[in-house]
Amino acid sequence: KTRVQIFKYVCMKWSLALLVGLITGLVGFFFNNFCTFVAYVGCNLLLATVAAALCAYIAPAAAGSGIPEVKAYLNGVDSHSILAPSTLLVKIFGSIFGVSAGFVLGKEGPMVHTGACVASLLSQGGSRKYHLTWRSLQYIKNDRDRRDLITCGAAAGVAAAFRAPVGGVLFALEEATTWWRNALLWRTFFTNAVVAVVLRSLIVYCRGGKCGLFGKGGLIMFDMSSTVSTYSTADLLAVMILGVIGGFLGAFYNYLVSKILCQYSKINEKGAAFKIIHTMSISLLTSCCSYGIPWLARCTPCPPGLADRCPTIGRSGNFKNFQCPPGHYNDLASLFLNTNEDAIRNLFSGNTGNEFDISTLILFFIAVYCLGLVTYGIAVPSGLFIPVILAGASFGRLVGTILGPISDLDPAIFALLGAASLLGGTMRMTVSVCVILLELTDDLLMLPLVMLVLLISKSVADNFNIGVYDLMIQMKGLPYLEAHAEPYMRHLVARDVVSGPLLTFFGVEKVGNIMQILKTTGHHGFPVINEPPFSEAPELCGLVLRSHLIVLLKGKRFTKDKVLTGSTEVFKSFGSFDFAKAGPGKGMKLEELEISADEMEMYVDLHPITNKSPYTVVETMSLAKAALLFRELGLRHLFVVPKTPGKPPVVGILTRHDFMREHILGLFPHFNQRKKTNEEQT
Amino acid sequence: KTRVQIFKYVCMKWSLALLVGLITGLVGFFFNNFCTFVAYVGCNLLLATVAAALCAYIAPAAAGSGIPEVKAYLNGVDSHSILAPSTLLVKIFGSIFGVSAGFVLGKEGPMVHTGACVASLLSQGGSRKYHLTWRSLQYIKNDRDRRDLITCGAAAGVAAAFRAPVGGVLFALEEATTWWRNALLWRTFFTNAVVAVVLRSLIVYCRGGKCGLFGKGGLIMFDMSSTVSTYSTADLLAVMILGVIGGFLGAFYNYLVSKILCQYSKINEKGAAFKIIHTMSISLLTSCCSYGIPWLARCTPCPPGLADRCPTIGRSGNFKNFQCPPGHYNDLASLFLNTNEDAIRNLFSGNTGNEFDISTLILFFIAVYCLGLVTYGIAVPSGLFIPVILAGASFGRLVGTILGPISDLDPAIFALLGAASLLGGTMRMTVSVCVILLELTDDLLMLPLVMLVLLISKSVADNFNIGVYDLMIQMKGLPYLEAHAEPYMRHLVARDVVSGPLLTFFGVEKVGNIMQILKTTGHHGFPVINEPPFSEAPELCGLVLRSHLIVLLKGKRFTKDKVLTGSTEVFKSFGSFDFAKAGPGKGMKLEELEISADEMEMYVDLHPITNKSPYTVVETMSLAKAALLFRELGLRHLFVVPKTPGKPPVVGILTRHDFMREHILGLFPHFNQRKKTNEEQT
Repeated sequence: KTRVQIFKYVCMKWSLALLVGLITGLVGFFFNNFCTFVAYVGCNLLLATVAAALCAYIAPAAAGSGIPEVKAYLNGVDSHSILAPSTLLVKIFGSIFGVSAGFVLGKEGPMVHTGACVASLLSQGGSRKYHLTWRSLQYIKNDRDRRDLITCGAAAGVAAAFRAPVGGVLFALEEATTWWRNALLWRTFFTNAVVAVVLRSLIVYCRGGKCGLFGKGGLIMFDMSSTVSTYSTADLLAVMILGVIGGFLGAFYNYLVSKILCQYSKINEKGAAFKIIHTMSISLLTSCCSYGIPWLARCTPCPPGLADRCPTIGRSGNFKNFQCPPGHYNDLASLFLNTNEDAIRNLFSGNTGNEFDISTLILFFIAVYCLGLVTYGIAVPSGLFIPVILAGASFGRLVGTILGPISDLDPAIFALLGAASLLGGTMRMTVSVCVILLELTDDLLMLPLVMLVLLISKSVADNFNIGVYDLMIQMKGLPYLEAHAEPYMRHLVARDVVSGPLLTFFGVEKVGNIMQILKTTGHHGFPVINEPPFSEAPELCGLVLRSHLIVLLKGKRFTKDKVLTGSTEVFKSFGSFDFAKAGPGKGMKLEELEISADEMEMYVDLHPITNKSPYTVVETMSLAKAALLFRELGLRHLFVVPKTPGKPPVVGILTRHDFMREHILGLFPHFNQRKKTNEEQT
Repeated sequence: KTRVQIFKYVCMKWSLALLVGLITGLVGFFFNNFCTFVAYVGCNLLLATVAAALCAYIAPAAAGSGIPEVKAYLNGVDSHSILAPSTLLVKIFGSIFGVSAGFVLGKEGPMVHTGACVASLLSQGGSRKYHLTWRSLQYIKNDRDRRDLITCGAAAGVAAAFRAPVGGVLFALEEATTWWRNALLWRTFFTNAVVAVVLRSLIVYCRGGKCGLFGKGGLIMFDMSSTVSTYSTADLLAVMILGVIGGFLGAFYNYLVSKILCQYSKINEKGAAFKIIHTMSISLLTSCCSYGIPWLARCTPCPPGLADRCPTIGRSGNFKNFQCPPGHYNDLASLFLNTNEDAIRNLFSGNTGNEFDISTLILFFIAVYCLGLVTYGIAVPSGLFIPVILAGASFGRLVGTILGPISDLDPAIFALLGAASLLGGTMRMTVSVCVILLELTDDLLMLPLVMLVLLISKSVADNFNIGVYDLMIQMKGLPYLEAHAEPYMRHLVARDVVSGPLLTFFGVEKVGNIMQILKTTGHHGFPVINEPPFSEAPELCGLVLRSHLIVLLKGKRFTKDKVLTGSTEVFKSFGSFDFAKAGPGKGMKLEELEISADEMEMYVDLHPITNKSPYTVVETMSLAKAALLFRELGLRHLFVVPKTPGKPPVVGILTRHDFMREHILGLFPHFNQRKKTNEEQT
């Protein structure tokens, strides 16, 4: 052997010996804590698996926040499974398991979805699928009433999750609904007053010790009890900096969320088993972070005068003992090894001075920011508010601790303002976030500062991308109608975007024709044209809906000849609710119809079921104006009529999809080009 | 003389002696207090006279609350003087003098009006009349931007008056605006954040003693500092009773206000001098009540332990000394001889037990309820909030004192709830009143109770009449477009209510024709029809506005023959803002045009100024649906087009006035009959 080889051999021996020692030492150390760790990870993993299995197998629509879906539904997107009873059940239990599993996620998004589902279930008069129907509840059978009730449900969800009834009303107004009426304000307010009274009564009842561990919280979740009476210009400057950074962080959060969701959607496409494995791996990661990172913190001696509160052992609270000797606490464990609510409470707790070290806050902020990002999108009901508040509060407290020498404000106030700035940066809500935070902390004197921070962070973030809920609606491909017409719509007229061959019915139509058109197309509405026997010239009679046609055909009031039946005659065959709008996915199917060949040759009078006052626009109407009409009146079909006489009475039908950006830019690609140029210029 | 006569004579003698004694005693007694009384009454009278003179001679539109006018403006009623600069000035100074004069009126209505006036002035780029114009501000020249800014102004008014920024936003949303967009929420929120920061900074600055007597108030106006943590079922019941009575009292208040305003309008019609005399007599009445009624109260010994606060002599505050010996206070004087804000603060003050006697509260409630009624409608800017809060608080405290044996709640809490119930009963606002009260008192734990009381009182009062601001809009005869179509509109079609002969222009029209039509009618919009030389058949080209026509005629781009000029050619003569909408009352007048007889025979091309995408409805469209379209899109003109071809291309124009109840019921009186029958049935 050469000397080199001998040297290598000796090195190897010694390094192997070193490795053995290292590994044994580490294993020995971990073994001491292994039982706790395994129990912790195991519990979390089990809960996470159950939640993911519920979501993956029973109701995939229950995964995620639910707020984008509710928002889209209230915009008029009738998606089948969004508000189904199974979604409701999975949302409730999945959310409970998910929160218990220690994920960095909140319960407010799921609560909003839950509220909306309950409202939908009640407005349909129960679920036909599960044979739970209440006859007396079936009066609400039109879109508007159902939408109103679901708005109330969404508002009640926020009110219950944050115990913020006024904030709930404002959330429904600012974020959820598309159409808002004063009567709705009044109704939402009523719902939320009921929520407030019920919550309050139950909490008072439970304070009497009558419900065990239940109901330990107060109506105000985070009592800051700080007395901010004055602030200097330096404070204001510090707060503005906080707002600007919060805006950047929020916009970046939205960007990352959209990128991660893109990746996740590829995993989710592979099937339910992949979803569960994915959720389990995120659960493992979260558990490891929560249990592992606190080891990095040094033990801090308890501040004097807090002997009764520090350290806390074996229960949630501030000043966690963790691995420290008596009289000391681990500040990272106070944040990581707590429920999310308690961690926020700890961050918001005032008059505790420099309880948290700067390194602790940095570590916790990074961990929570990243965990929040990777957690959203797994197959578990998960809200975004709590992760954002958590990250924002730690970031705010961090800034407050750093700026301590300059600013006199308590770090707790910075924590609150940090939460506000990150919320403003991601959600882009203003008044509702402001009121929710004030209701959470019961500190009205903070109002000007919170408003300022929200204004700044939203303005900053709006330069980069849109709010996180709108982003998700876009990613899910839901046809959401925007409040404002896009600029390129001004250069188009209604006629330009009308698509497809137009299918029309005559006022008295052959049954076979109707069946054939219904079978070959998926349209939901058709124009009805009156022709010479029944009018002087071909003229537009109105709009007939697919669902009404199916019900009418089922009634089989057919005639041999082309004659008017008259509506009194027709309605003899139908009950008062037969034409009412069925719940999503509950309507009669075309396949259920059995029509013989003889009947196919007969005629049916469509006049009784025709809406004779449809909204129309002239074909030369500016598309932007047509879009305004469509959206403001909450239409589903808008007729385009010719400008000059002598043409067929209808040029086409505009539906929601015709106003979508993708459709229009597909027809006129040059607007896309032009828009990009404009964006570069501005 | 008979014995009877002698008896009469003796009686007379003695009773006269008695009277002389009585009167001399009274005069002697009054003489002691006369100087104070005269000074008090004199000051008030002087201030009241100045305020009334300002209103009566300079800007009659400044009298009253101003909220109904702002509400009507935001609904689309362009009334000339509502937002004029003179109105602004009189509103500010009249309100200051009016409040100083000791009237039972508030400053919040005038503050809202002031905010709206300031916004209007800024959006017009200054006042042309007073030669104050800013060129850079003149970009906002359309209805919508101006309306948005004025909404912000109204919100800022509430925010400044109550120091309630969130309440201000909600007020603008719930009561003021007709059209609400999310972008507007965001803008109003910004305005109110600025208001909050400015107020806060000034208050903090003034706390340093730098502004003398200014700025003694805090951001929270009425600090209740009560700690209501639990309430029993008995408390809830008491609160519900309060709500019901408050609803009745509120509805009765509205009824009486409308009756009294009817009477007052007869006085006001007689001229400015009558207005001033009227105001002076109300001022005398108020002064007599404030100074006279406290004599009826007994002196109460100060409660033990409040030696530093009781009694207060010579300044505003609780526990007024008035005529009492040292160590005693007069509880009626604490309410009457204070500013309205201090009286409310005294009623809201907690932990003062039975500071106010039941008889005191009854007297004060009756006096304030009646004075509030007779004061509103005099020629002084006067808000309704403070009188209603004052009456409500005394009524609530009264109920609380009476129910003391049953309920454990502090009478101060009852005062707050009483104010809420009366506000709910008169104004019929819910969320905004709730938030304003919470921001006023900084007591979020009261939220469920306040919500409950508001719900009950509004529901009760809604059975009797409409809200006080809507009532005033009705009485002033402003054409306010309601949110909901009336039921009888369902039985009518658009064609039915089109009124008057239709005046149309051709695409290229003779100048003389235009002048003649503009001179003989007052219409603001005309249809433009294209005829065969320029199109195949007569067809509707669009809508042209009177104001645009006048500008176009002033440009004198006339042609000898009937030819198209082309828009580039026409716009060479005009600046970019010439066609922008001028401020109310600022547009060019028809009389300013000077057109020679030769020019009258020439032609002008109307196409460049024609709006080619007007909204239209078919003549058979249900009137209810047309009304929905008109209101939701905020239109001023809506074309009615024929259903079948072969007729003239326009049947008529619908304007705001065609949807008014009076107009429709004038055309179809039988609906009125039917409506009455329906009301009797329900």
